[in-house]
Amino acid sequence: MNALTFRGVENVAFETVPDPTLEEPRDAIVRVEVAGLCGSDLHPYFGREVGIERGTVLGHEFVGEVVELGAEATRRLDDAGPGSGFGVGARVVAPFTSNCGTCAHCRAGLTARCQRGQLFGWREGGRGLHGGQAEYVRVPFADATLVPVPEQVEDPGLAILAGDILSTALFAVELAAVADDDVVAVVGCGPVGLLAIRAALAAGARAVVAVDTVESRLAAAERFGALPARAPSGGVDPGEALAMVLERTGGVGADAAIEAAGTPRATRSAAALLRAGGRLAAVAVHSEPNPGLSPAEMYDRNLTYAAGRCPARRLIPNALRFAAMNDALVLSLISHRLPLSSGPEAYRNFGARAPGWLKVLLAP
Amino acid sequence: MNALTFRGVENVAFETVPDPTLEEPRDAIVRVEVAGLCGSDLHPYFGREVGIERGTVLGHEFVGEVVELGAEATRRLDDAGPGSGFGVGARVVAPFTSNCGTCAHCRAGLTARCQRGQLFGWREGGRGLHGGQAEYVRVPFADATLVPVPEQVEDPGLAILAGDILSTALFAVELAAVADDDVVAVVGCGPVGLLAIRAALAAGARAVVAVDTVESRLAAAERFGALPARAPSGGVDPGEALAMVLERTGGVGADAAIEAAGTPRATRSAAALLRAGGRLAAVAVHSEPNPGLSPAEMYDRNLTYAAGRCPARRLIPNALRFAAMNDALVLSLISHRLPLSSGPEAYRNFGARAPGWLKVLLAP
Amino acid sequence: MNALTFRGVENVAFETVPDPTLEEPRDAIVRVEVAGLCGSDLHPYFGREVGIERGTVLGHEFVGEVVELGAEATRRLDDAGPGSGFGVGARVVAPFTSNCGTCAHCRAGLTARCQRGQLFGWREGGRGLHGGQAEYVRVPFADATLVPVPEQVEDPGLAILAGDILSTALFAVELAAVADDDVVAVVGCGPVGLLAIRAALAAGARAVVAVDTVESRLAAAERFGALPARAPSGGVDPGEALAMVLERTGGVGADAAIEAAGTPRATRSAAALLRAGGRLAAVAVHSEPNPGLSPAEMYDRNLTYAAGRCPARRLIPNALRFAAMNDALVLSLISHRLPLSSGPEAYRNFGARAPGWLKVLLAP
Amino acid sequence: MNALTFRGVENVAFETVPDPTLEEPRDAIVRVEVAGLCGSDLHPYFGREVGIERGTVLGHEFVGEVVELGAEATRRLDDAGPGSGFGVGARVVAPFTSNCGTCAHCRAGLTARCQRGQLFGWREGGRGLHGGQAEYVRVPFADATLVPVPEQVEDPGLAILAGDILSTALFAVELAAVADDDVVAVVGCGPVGLLAIRAALAAGARAVVAVDTVESRLAAAERFGALPARAPSGGVDPGEALAMVLERTGGVGADAAIEAAGTPRATRSAAALLRAGGRLAAVAVHSEPNPGLSPAEMYDRNLTYAAGRCPARRLIPNALRFAAMNDALVLSLISHRLPLSSGPEAYRNFGARAPGWLKVLLAP
Repeated sequence: MNALTFRGVENVAFETVPDPTLEEPRDAIVRVEVAGLCGSDLHPYFGREVGIERGTVLGHEFVGEVVELGAEATRRLDDAGPGSGFGVGARVVAPFTSNCGTCAHCRAGLTARCQRGQLFGWREGGRGLHGGQAEYVRVPFADATLVPVPEQVEDPGLAILAGDILSTALFAVELAAVADDDVVAVVGCGPVGLLAIRAALAAGARAVVAVDTVESRLAAAERFGALPARAPSGGVDPGEALAMVLERTGGVGADAAIEAAGTPRATRSAAALLRAGGRLAAVAVHSEPNPGLSPAEMYDRNLTYAAGRCPARRLIPNALRFAAMNDALVLSLISHRLPLSSGPEAYRNFGARAPGWLKVLLAP
Repeated sequence: MNALTFRGVENVAFETVPDPTLEEPRDAIVRVEVAGLCGSDLHPYFGREVGIERGTVLGHEFVGEVVELGAEATRRLDDAGPGSGFGVGARVVAPFTSNCGTCAHCRAGLTARCQRGQLFGWREGGRGLHGGQAEYVRVPFADATLVPVPEQVEDPGLAILAGDILSTALFAVELAAVADDDVVAVVGCGPVGLLAIRAALAAGARAVVAVDTVESRLAAAERFGALPARAPSGGVDPGEALAMVLERTGGVGADAAIEAAGTPRATRSAAALLRAGGRLAAVAVHSEPNPGLSPAEMYDRNLTYAAGRCPARRLIPNALRFAAMNDALVLSLISHRLPLSSGPEAYRNFGARAPGWLKVLLAP
Repeated sequence: MNALTFRGVENVAFETVPDPTLEEPRDAIVRVEVAGLCGSDLHPYFGREVGIERGTVLGHEFVGEVVELGAEATRRLDDAGPGSGFGVGARVVAPFTSNCGTCAHCRAGLTARCQRGQLFGWREGGRGLHGGQAEYVRVPFADATLVPVPEQVEDPGLAILAGDILSTALFAVELAAVADDDVVAVVGCGPVGLLAIRAALAAGARAVVAVDTVESRLAAAERFGALPARAPSGGVDPGEALAMVLERTGGVGADAAIEAAGTPRATRSAAALLRAGGRLAAVAVHSEPNPGLSPAEMYDRNLTYAAGRCPARRLIPNALRFAAMNDALVLSLISHRLPLSSGPEAYRNFGARAPGWLKVLLAP
Repeated sequence: MNALTFRGVENVAFETVPDPTLEEPRDAIVRVEVAGLCGSDLHPYFGREVGIERGTVLGHEFVGEVVELGAEATRRLDDAGPGSGFGVGARVVAPFTSNCGTCAHCRAGLTARCQRGQLFGWREGGRGLHGGQAEYVRVPFADATLVPVPEQVEDPGLAILAGDILSTALFAVELAAVADDDVVAVVGCGPVGLLAIRAALAAGARAVVAVDTVESRLAAAERFGALPARAPSGGVDPGEALAMVLERTGGVGADAAIEAAGTPRATRSAAALLRAGGRLAAVAVHSEPNPGLSPAEMYDRNLTYAAGRCPARRLIPNALRFAAMNDALVLSLISHRLPLSSGPEAYRNFGARAPGWLKVLLAP
């Protein structure tokens, strides 16, 4: 089959590789309809993450059709009673990792921390999973990993986003425990931040104040329903956001803040916008040694800080529904739909942050 | 009336002071049945907290009878419909601060952060409230601050503890979001930790592992229903607790941890005991500059850290019910019941951590 | 001022009446921007409900601007802290009844059962409230009754619907406890049923099967996101709905059913579609002596039956947000926007169920 | 082995029958430590329920030790990760029916409606399960049916009650959605009603008014923490309960009512005690054709009526914890502990409602 493979730093090939086959009894083979190109695909591409084997098929976002299903996967689906699950022929979407569905982490809803889970598109030392930027992909624990796409979701782009950034946005809203009538701050207006704005509003937020330093991102935030607030490009000053939040809360502060920027400054800004008793959800990746909030400050202001990697598998069903009800906004985040053979060029342009390259879909 | 007053560092007097009178329309005057002596009363006593005025009546724990009620307090109680609230003659307990019931913080359930709230037993610069270690005490916003004591709570000691450490223990369980079948770690087995053990069990915990360095505290923890685990007296090693937690969770870790010790070591120990997705509740006071957990660690393990001062007023009704259903255990924390006139001596003994001086009640 | 008044059966006048004035200290006077004509306005119009006084200003749906506010209403708004509530000049919407906000029913969230509440547009024996089909309307307990309209809701029609049928639809979803991934049946596709379809989807329903006997209503149900199922026009047979529900639930039945038709047949149909453990919410008005479900049947199938009048005041804030996020669908239910002076003719046409007369707005 | 078997109406034999063996791969064999004799065992005993085969081993309440476990049961336990579940040697308790754990009803928490579930102690036409009044019992779907007994539950009587009436009492509180500060009415003070009183208090009820016609039951209700209210022995008049409820709720009515008597009168009494918006939970078995509440009455008072058979398997873990924390009260319901060989006599005395025969445990 054709696939995009890792050939070294800044080197992705469109080439022919062997078709995947069932290896374990709970495996499925999925014929890929569309694969996504994600910001985190660039980490190995640019060598910021190392260890990935040459020849690994890339990509952890894909939607497609189940064409083969292992005996044990079928048995488990049957086991859940008539009508449950899906069979060969079903249109499905996958989260970025596989998950077994039965370990303690899966049962606790932390599917992305599955004790047997593996990231799609990462092989190292002869082990691991090939990815979805290919014609076919093998999916372990398929009965627990794959989610059927409901009829009302026609555009595969909706399903691709549901499996990744949209799940993350819903997770941010869950971590921040956004409730009816809350005023919410979103710090960082990249795609996750934008979708989190809309998700917070759907969860009942009275107003969302969106903070960023870049005008074009703030304009997008406004389109997604937020009140845009410009932050100064340096320092931890939350800028005009603070005044906007205080005005809408009688001087008290935001009920919840979603930090989707991944910098210490963003954490401080988000905390500065919160009321006493506020909840800060961090869904971006950080590398600083501490969160920049002292226990005493958190005690004095009764703050909660919650962080984590999105359990995409658990959230995808919700994300698909959300995508169907907000299709125009969600699809506006997709900038390119290209054939899989354009993959190497797409990596170059997307990697170079070429203007207008937001989200790329690749069709085999 | 007779009262215990602050006369300087390590100097408390039993003396005659003027009776309090109604000053504001929502005030009440409460005739004190019993007042508590609390660990935090020792901060000003030893000069660790400064600013308190000489002559201030001390104490923020009291139960008693409403003997006068301002016109506006009466009107508000009536306004809530027949049968609500309480009137003159009611037996009531107070939280450690007053609260208005209508500001944003009160409405959000953060009664101890009330924008108009004041701590009982703290006057400074001619302002503030006298405390409850007296025959009478003035209570502002009485309709919102005081809680009627239900018939089934006879012993005033139950009500005193409900208003302070028991509310804090219930708050710890709330912050840690303890749910059915959770395995919970409690780090620090002082009175708050002990009550948190029992509260976690009542909230459905399958097992509570209690961590301390002191044998006598661990023995008490076992009496409250916990599995006692000895921690080494130095370092952040959670000691035998980790093995106990892992054994009961299939190697995964505790669902929730309550940190009731107030040291960086306790925070690290509590975090080390948690599973991925675990929740750490910190109800002790800390002074270190950061919580000792990096954002990356919290992200990688999907941790939540929640801290804060207990909103006692909101939790007292629950605490009273809990006290009534667990009266023997709760009352076992009270070591002394003395006349108010013994107050100066009680401060000395309690302040010196004399053996067996756990909790002191003073009756005018 | 100009107003529509009740002059007898099938007799509504557009005439001049005295302007309302503040009567009680918590009153407000609202200048009406738009009033709604509601199906239940037809009950007194046709004499199906009797007792209403001649000269009563009709109508219980209105949106407008606060032009006067009693001293006590102002005081209460201030009391809730800076920034809360609204003042003179605010654009507000009212529920169909006034409510005090402090009685036991108001505090329990049952605002439409307020012990001091009154229906707008109903006077009898010299008491009661004039309605909103007028230039001005007096609103008792204004601080607790009126809801400020958020900036993002421009069209007054959205606010009118939020105050009545949209709140009822949200209430149906609340009573039915619709949760993520539920399959929901909606029996009866009038305006409340249609909005309940959309509200159930927004609450996470995987699929909504909508049952009606009329093709045009089923076509509308499909537009609102439901799977339309034709019911036979007689009998309690749920018709093709049952097969559709069973197919989507592995033969088990719907998780929740919303009955918005008001007939015994609808109750039986809704019950027949439920799985064991299902929840039936009845928001339509019934007159039969019993629900047609035996205790044994409910026990054997673990059913819950919940009924009630919508507490609109509590739900309006949610309804306004929902309206803003689903504006095109919601506004599609409004068929006519007329001057108040056309009121008598509007009552005639709407009362005669003239084709296309769905929802009428009247602007003074 | 020795067992109690059904030999005809009013005819139970203590005799030797073949030992059970593993039949299906998810089976377990349990060596019985103690079996319970339950009121519903009397239905076939007196011929009120017919169809049970001669020779059937009776009884659906038992606690014991797992002595054999089918290969598939072991595999499933392993599948849930290290440390989960139980193995050979575990002390376990069973609900009154088996359940598969994977069908739609099991996944919805309705374990007693499992699509593959069977009642212990009922065989008919050569199919069905033998019961637990024996030395050994075969348990299908053992991995999903059996619950390990925690260390802190020593007395087997606590586990027996947890598996049956205590689970039912907790279910009643769940169906009635008892919340903090509720006033609750319990109509019918048999063992389920008594335990429901305590469970409602543990769930936060401010007061429980218990209604019965029999003085001795009311005395027991008071011991369990309720305010006892005598009902007249005929008619639907809730008697003195109404005054007691109104006094404690400002004239409004109870928030929730638990009907544990199984008569139309009890339903009407329970409904009469509720406030608007109240919730009525019916856990007793009824035979009348309708609940005696009209849809209009339920609409006008915003009532919820919920009925059903207790999903014991889901609730047993909670029930075991509850039993451990309330051991003295729970054990007070057990009147006799006899050898299994006394079974025939125990059926006679228990069936004759001999004075003092409340709950009988039988040890092989």
